[in-house]
Amino acid sequence: MFNVNEYFDGKVKSLAFQNKKGDVTIGVMAIGEYEFGTTTIEHMTVTSGEMKVQLPNSAEWKVFGEYETFVVEKNTKFKVIVEDQTSYKCVYS
Amino acid sequence: MFNVNEYFDGKVKSLAFQNKKGDVTIGVMAIGEYEFGTTTIEHMTVTSGEMKVQLPNSAEWKVFGEYETFVVEKNTKFKVIVEDQTSYKCVYS
Repeated sequence: MFNVNEYFDGKVKSLAFQNKKGDVTIGVMAIGEYEFGTTTIEHMTVTSGEMKVQLPNSAEWKVFGEYETFVVEKNTKFKVIVEDQTSYKCVYS
Repeated sequence: MFNVNEYFDGKVKSLAFQNKKGDVTIGVMAIGEYEFGTTTIEHMTVTSGEMKVQLPNSAEWKVFGEYETFVVEKNTKFKVIVEDQTSYKCVYS
């Protein structure tokens, strides 16, 4: 019914679904630093915890807390640091 | 690292983690009607979609949309109807 995806040896794990908003994943990240690649525009919302994010073409790290959203363009990469287990929702468009 | 839990033949699936907020699960529900039992107080937040909820000792069904939260007491049961795939966060206390 719902696919489970694992990345970074299981340090990032997500569940995929679809609804009126489109293709959505919800996931959780263990403490660590990650680089993700995009193939579509991604609307990432922190749902518990906090992410430090380095968006593409930016030297700056910005902090996003609970229910804050950032948008990543398609076909690019972004970096995330989490210092406590942190969950997110990602909507693809 | 993160346990995947399945209920109702996989129609409800969740990932468990822990952070400063305590024990947390994020999950997704397929279209359907469900009854859940609690063993702790649960703070349920819809993260995508919509839930119709019948809280304990209530005849009324209330609708909760994106980022709305309801609280369920411990050692009780509550019913949920979802009409589109819907995700949630549950914080246990």
